Amino acid sequence: MAPFDLTELADELGDGVLVTDADVVRSYSADQALFCPADGAIALVRARTVADVQATMRFATRHRVPVVPQGARTGLSGGANAVPGCLLLSLERMDRVLEVDAAERTVTVEPGIINQDLKDALAPHGLSYPPDPGSVAISSIGGNVATNAGGLCCVRYGVTRDYVRRLRVVLADGTLTTLGTTTAKGVAGLDLRSLFVGSEGTLGVVVEVTLRLVPTLPEPLTAVATFADIRSAAATVADLMASGAQPSLVESMDRATLQVLAECGYGDVGTGAGAMLLVQSDGSGSLEAAQAEVEALGRFAQAHGALDVAVSDDPADSAALVAMRRMAQPSFERWAQAHGGGQLLDDVCLPRTRLPEFYDRLETIRQESGLMIAVVAHAGDGNTHPSVFFDTSDPDSVARADAAFDAIMEVGLELGGTITGEHGVGHLKRRWLARELDEGSRRAHLAVKAALDPLGILNPGKMLAEL
Amino acid sequence: MAPFDLTELADELGDGVLVTDADVVRSYSADQALFCPADGAIALVRARTVADVQATMRFATRHRVPVVPQGARTGLSGGANAVPGCLLLSLERMDRVLEVDAAERTVTVEPGIINQDLKDALAPHGLSYPPDPGSVAISSIGGNVATNAGGLCCVRYGVTRDYVRRLRVVLADGTLTTLGTTTAKGVAGLDLRSLFVGSEGTLGVVVEVTLRLVPTLPEPLTAVATFADIRSAAATVADLMASGAQPSLVESMDRATLQVLAECGYGDVGTGAGAMLLVQSDGSGSLEAAQAEVEALGRFAQAHGALDVAVSDDPADSAALVAMRRMAQPSFERWAQAHGGGQLLDDVCLPRTRLPEFYDRLETIRQESGLMIAVVAHAGDGNTHPSVFFDTSDPDSVARADAAFDAIMEVGLELGGTITGEHGVGHLKRRWLARELDEGSRRAHLAVKAALDPLGILNPGKMLAEL
Repeated sequence: MAPFDLTELADELGDGVLVTDADVVRSYSADQALFCPADGAIALVRARTVADVQATMRFATRHRVPVVPQGARTGLSGGANAVPGCLLLSLERMDRVLEVDAAERTVTVEPGIINQDLKDALAPHGLSYPPDPGSVAISSIGGNVATNAGGLCCVRYGVTRDYVRRLRVVLADGTLTTLGTTTAKGVAGLDLRSLFVGSEGTLGVVVEVTLRLVPTLPEPLTAVATFADIRSAAATVADLMASGAQPSLVESMDRATLQVLAECGYGDVGTGAGAMLLVQSDGSGSLEAAQAEVEALGRFAQAHGALDVAVSDDPADSAALVAMRRMAQPSFERWAQAHGGGQLLDDVCLPRTRLPEFYDRLETIRQESGLMIAVVAHAGDGNTHPSVFFDTSDPDSVARADAAFDAIMEVGLELGGTITGEHGVGHLKRRWLARELDEGSRRAHLAVKAALDPLGILNPGKMLAEL
Repeated sequence: MAPFDLTELADELGDGVLVTDADVVRSYSADQALFCPADGAIALVRARTVADVQATMRFATRHRVPVVPQGARTGLSGGANAVPGCLLLSLERMDRVLEVDAAERTVTVEPGIINQDLKDALAPHGLSYPPDPGSVAISSIGGNVATNAGGLCCVRYGVTRDYVRRLRVVLADGTLTTLGTTTAKGVAGLDLRSLFVGSEGTLGVVVEVTLRLVPTLPEPLTAVATFADIRSAAATVADLMASGAQPSLVESMDRATLQVLAECGYGDVGTGAGAMLLVQSDGSGSLEAAQAEVEALGRFAQAHGALDVAVSDDPADSAALVAMRRMAQPSFERWAQAHGGGQLLDDVCLPRTRLPEFYDRLETIRQESGLMIAVVAHAGDGNTHPSVFFDTSDPDSVARADAAFDAIMEVGLELGGTITGEHGVGHLKRRWLARELDEGSRRAHLAVKAALDPLGILNPGKMLAEL
């Protein structure tokens, strides 16, 4: 029996906030990562208010209970998964827009709001919040802040951190604090606000977020180029970005991805195509500038032997092509279900110029593993997402998938990249974080963690567990 | 006598790196802030290499000697000033460009390089590093990183932090570590890189900086509007920014500033003008977009009773107007020399919509103090720089200036702003930092500081000294 009484916590929370029903607790115990443990939660707190979060953290501090903060549990690294003896602290019910300040171009929200819901709420104001992770329709702003989420438009518009002005955070001991300022500029003190962005629930619980906004993004031109192989597509991207172009979206899909999409009925680009490049340019609102960039893409693509290049200024075409790209992951999931069930999704970010070499190295890994590996990439940022497919019922297949997954990160580091561009470390890559960081950085990480969470109760066993 | 022997340090450093000549040490003992102590340095280390910096920090750790890292000592808050018994650690000799990577659009530099020298080195590559503090011609990139420096183009292009990809930092004990990644995206671990940006030498010594770059910025259109009073100019700015415009520069000067500039021979906008607004728009390269923004400015200015609005697309005109704005501070210095010698330069950043109210409140402070107060502002960011002029030989004048300086920050906080938008805290505003931060944030600041500098040897008595 636990050395504390949960009714003590229940009494401090609003009605129905503390959930101990085992089935419900279990249903909140994992995000979307594979191969990450998720057992042992003792209860679920479905916070409705900042006071609920503070009471939870005060209780956790008193009794040294681990707390796992959660948003929409759409993460891909196990960062929101239960750990033994923990309280799951869900922020999904705190999902209000608190203030849209059109004059200052900021919005203040609770962390549980879904990214797309925020975008929809801003549209009538002529304002936009650009970051658009693949999970845009299902992931929460709090989760986006916790992982410093990226997305498709980052190549032009940056990542979550670039938009966070101010955070309200509940610290490990339950203290509520404000980090940063809503003003356009501000350098009063250490940038603890940025430190919390991407900290994956290991330093505190974000309970309010003020985001900088931009005017509604201009409609882009969309270009599609197909190639015989992904290497040519990657070389085209490297040339395009080195030319000074500033496209608003540069996505690539390899042969395996195109095949899975075609099999699932989400688009067929023809049998000859071994790769597809999807590029958008909004020219910052200038059609002329957008046309110039799209034409530049065409030239680079031709120089690298493109099979076909097509351009459209029809928003419906554009939306359909981006939708096709966004169907890659759901298609992978369907394909995996039909072929042994396993998909390990990687997230290696590389210098763009190393992309062709990366694909060469990946081909070797594919051959050695004997597994299907399909790669979509936010290619303009060098951020690749190789998926390794395997048979979950075959230990040998699982082992080969695991080895391939690791080999991909190893190549990423060798080529000057990072083990995670946008998905985060969570449980899945904690061992690899220790590989990427040098000794001084590892020590600094642990020192900062101990400073802000001296009892080690915030999301233990995750990001920082193997440093 | 000090309980250690400096020859022990000299032996570990390159030839001529350790300087103990009292006159030289004194000449390196202060930045450009007023009212900040700067006595007591025991020696100056003019580092040439990372190894020099490491040796200095190892020595400082062994003997618990305070270390004050310095760039070009152009700061305005006393952050680079000597403290009793300290080693001054100057990075000015480490001023090389290590690598321009045009394909990745990054540059790696040593910290001592002057911002403008970096810009000049990048121009032949068709690349630009946007941040342009008023001190662009004299301040170093390391100093810009230490203060998260802003500038004139921030309203469109952001501040130093938005461009820092990777830092190499020597920690308090001499350990060299790499924070961040050169790739476009990366979320491996805590964002210690951003934590170090703006940390004013209190957490470690930055010895290498990799910056993200953008293609050469387009030539802007420039508009000048004059008004009878600064309140009308401020209201124009608030309307312009609320309209969704994205100008690349929005600077305002009040009546006192225009008078000082005229007296110093740097431009005379006519006797009726009580305020001037200087706005640039580059339309992201689209002349049409730039024209639309400049026309919008004209409409808002007329609605607020502008005396005159003029537009130019001549780069020479544009350069002359920006040069006039950049002469404000040198003119203030000359004017102060001729009128009692004292100028206290403040740096309050406000929500843009509160600018008119801020100027009203400032008028009251001006009347109560009986002193001249002149205000230039990066108005598009709400970042105001009120200068309080006083007679250094008159204790009453000094006291009134001090009170006015404080009152300005008090109003800034009351209106939802911050005590420093870009100059930093240093020694000058350390008491005010304690006012701005809440209790949880103050404790978090001290915990993080203790975690990374357990002996308290890095720039003690500055930013964090009164939390």
